[in-house]
Amino acid sequence: MAMDTARRELIQELAVANESKLLLLVADGLGGVAPMTGGGTELETAETPNLDDLAARGTLGLMTPVAPGITPGSGPGHLGLFGFDPMDVVVGRGVLEALGIGFALEPSDVAARCNLCTVDEEGRITDRRAGRIASDDAEKLVRRLDELSIDGVEVFVEHVREHRFVLVLRGEGLEADVADTDPQHEGSAPLAAVARTDASRRTAAVIDEFARKAREALEGEVANMVLLRGVSKRPEIPSFRDAYHLRSLALATYPMYRGLAQLVGMDVADVATMEDQLAAVGESWSSYDFFFVHYKPTDSTGEDKRFDAKVRAIEELDGALPALLAGAPDVVAVTGDHSTPSLLGSHSWHPIPIVLAAESCRRDGIATFGESQCCRGGLGQLESKHLLALMLAHAHRLGKFGA
Amino acid sequence: MAMDTARRELIQELAVANESKLLLLVADGLGGVAPMTGGGTELETAETPNLDDLAARGTLGLMTPVAPGITPGSGPGHLGLFGFDPMDVVVGRGVLEALGIGFALEPSDVAARCNLCTVDEEGRITDRRAGRIASDDAEKLVRRLDELSIDGVEVFVEHVREHRFVLVLRGEGLEADVADTDPQHEGSAPLAAVARTDASRRTAAVIDEFARKAREALEGEVANMVLLRGVSKRPEIPSFRDAYHLRSLALATYPMYRGLAQLVGMDVADVATMEDQLAAVGESWSSYDFFFVHYKPTDSTGEDKRFDAKVRAIEELDGALPALLAGAPDVVAVTGDHSTPSLLGSHSWHPIPIVLAAESCRRDGIATFGESQCCRGGLGQLESKHLLALMLAHAHRLGKFGA
Repeated sequence: MAMDTARRELIQELAVANESKLLLLVADGLGGVAPMTGGGTELETAETPNLDDLAARGTLGLMTPVAPGITPGSGPGHLGLFGFDPMDVVVGRGVLEALGIGFALEPSDVAARCNLCTVDEEGRITDRRAGRIASDDAEKLVRRLDELSIDGVEVFVEHVREHRFVLVLRGEGLEADVADTDPQHEGSAPLAAVARTDASRRTAAVIDEFARKAREALEGEVANMVLLRGVSKRPEIPSFRDAYHLRSLALATYPMYRGLAQLVGMDVADVATMEDQLAAVGESWSSYDFFFVHYKPTDSTGEDKRFDAKVRAIEELDGALPALLAGAPDVVAVTGDHSTPSLLGSHSWHPIPIVLAAESCRRDGIATFGESQCCRGGLGQLESKHLLALMLAHAHRLGKFGA
Repeated sequence: MAMDTARRELIQELAVANESKLLLLVADGLGGVAPMTGGGTELETAETPNLDDLAARGTLGLMTPVAPGITPGSGPGHLGLFGFDPMDVVVGRGVLEALGIGFALEPSDVAARCNLCTVDEEGRITDRRAGRIASDDAEKLVRRLDELSIDGVEVFVEHVREHRFVLVLRGEGLEADVADTDPQHEGSAPLAAVARTDASRRTAAVIDEFARKAREALEGEVANMVLLRGVSKRPEIPSFRDAYHLRSLALATYPMYRGLAQLVGMDVADVATMEDQLAAVGESWSSYDFFFVHYKPTDSTGEDKRFDAKVRAIEELDGALPALLAGAPDVVAVTGDHSTPSLLGSHSWHPIPIVLAAESCRRDGIATFGESQCCRGGLGQLESKHLLALMLAHAHRLGKFGA
């Protein structure tokens, strides 16, 4: 049994519907680190009058997405925010890759993350990435693969970029417990697909057939074979509606985050910019209870090691806050899915600043939103998975446990 | 296996007896929330020189009874204080109702929480609460039910108030995994008792026989049928004496809290007022190691949304503190089983202030007992279940784990 099941089931049992509105604003990669030379973090450096106002009205804290020291990808980071222990609910790499390009995965679909590769005449891999083939060239080859047909199975092949593509298999009796065909080194042949359970044997056979037909279709090309990894299905998890009686809407400009929101049954708004997001929140205010708004620039600037650009990204977000909160949600949380310090230029394990504002907050007397302030905040340090329960509690959407 | 078993077994293994005295003062519903208009919480507003003195000598913190966002009833709240993860040890509603009226439940007894209800000639429920029948009228009818006899089973029927009563079955071979007979809506007949396990079949048959005989006995009355819920047994948990070598005494003026203390094997003093409690602590000082003192007014004033009255209740408790501590216990903890902010007028999920004082405390330099201070206290934020181990440790009653 997953470790956190009892807590999740308890929350589902206690959840009730009401008229309240909840808004979760995720500034991707929000948390930062101050430079050794002094000064504050990106968030502490930014001028954020609106976030500071929210801090004054709310409670601050620091959230750990998985466990201390663990740096999460976007999948575990968001699953934590959606109330799961990310070690309990794993989203396979095939599924994540499919979500990342906006592929509408059905619950029974099997997805794999694939590479175009190069093999020699004996079938031994000479380049696992086909010389990092250019995207334009790769796309043509991937289109050929999309035309392959396998009896009794629908085959979808979608290009991602360069040598990477996604394979999705749709059909009866396909389970996903199949080992990678990528041996992770050159000099040997791609592995046959090995089913780890009896129920996955058909999937393994289909994958082997796909690889054989792919090799024929790519004969003579630089990229003349395929490697599969992360064969997986969508995790079976209850939707926000079933679990918490929340009609929820995701407002994210990147497909990956829409896909993650769809995993928990959120509806997805068609938005490309922050203006779209603000407009969509306003238009759909009466139709939904829970709004998940995703903001990417805090992460991408951090990844690029651009401290000042991340500061500006935070200031832009702060500027959008009043419009975002125009409907006066009963509960507001602003946080990240993980930290992306521009000092490191990558996702990190550092706890994420959180501000939670609601009428029933026990205010902590802090009126600035920054990592140093959050460290002294009323929420203390907690795992991200607890945020959703706290939001539901402040929205009076959780009944009492026991008499 | 229950999630927290390893930790509890470790503490039991390490526990030793000595001459130390421990006192746990539970101010029910202690935690509060400051009004939006400013000012402090109830505890922060109250003048509490004695609690502040304890704070100066001790360490502060905030405790979460179950998990962030979860509002506990008295059962889970106290089980946490008694060292259990409240998600591991569930006290059924039948058991809680029996404890609440002071019924001395034996370990093999099966208890159910019952309603008098009204059914029409076809046996369909027309009022699940028999028109909220007056207590006096209900009591007479409940006395009739107490006279019913069932072969091989002792039947105890005790009135609670209005339409509510408790049924306790005592006999061989009775397990409690039986579904409610209350369909939770009017218009259909009461459900037959359904055993969820083979071992509970006899109990289901006895319950059906009881319901049949109850209908006969109540023929022609406004309340002419019964509905059962929360069929349950006392959880099987080790006593404080067996687990921790603690001779423990509960000093509680309400039956519910005496009952909860009895679940962990505490002796129970016969007390009706705070004066009784103070006197009983003094008289029994040499006979016990652990004193659990329960104070109710902090909760009832909070439930009534009376901020000022809760402030006074806290001040009264503070006034009693010197007498309570006259025996100079080696370890003192003052906290609550949950928060009951008068702002909400109900139990809540907010963490509970705790002050723990002992010679070996690592003092945190804070000399005021309040939620804001506790937020910066040396204990940090922890789950209530850890308090008992901390008290035992400061009493030098826990040996070393491993070499």
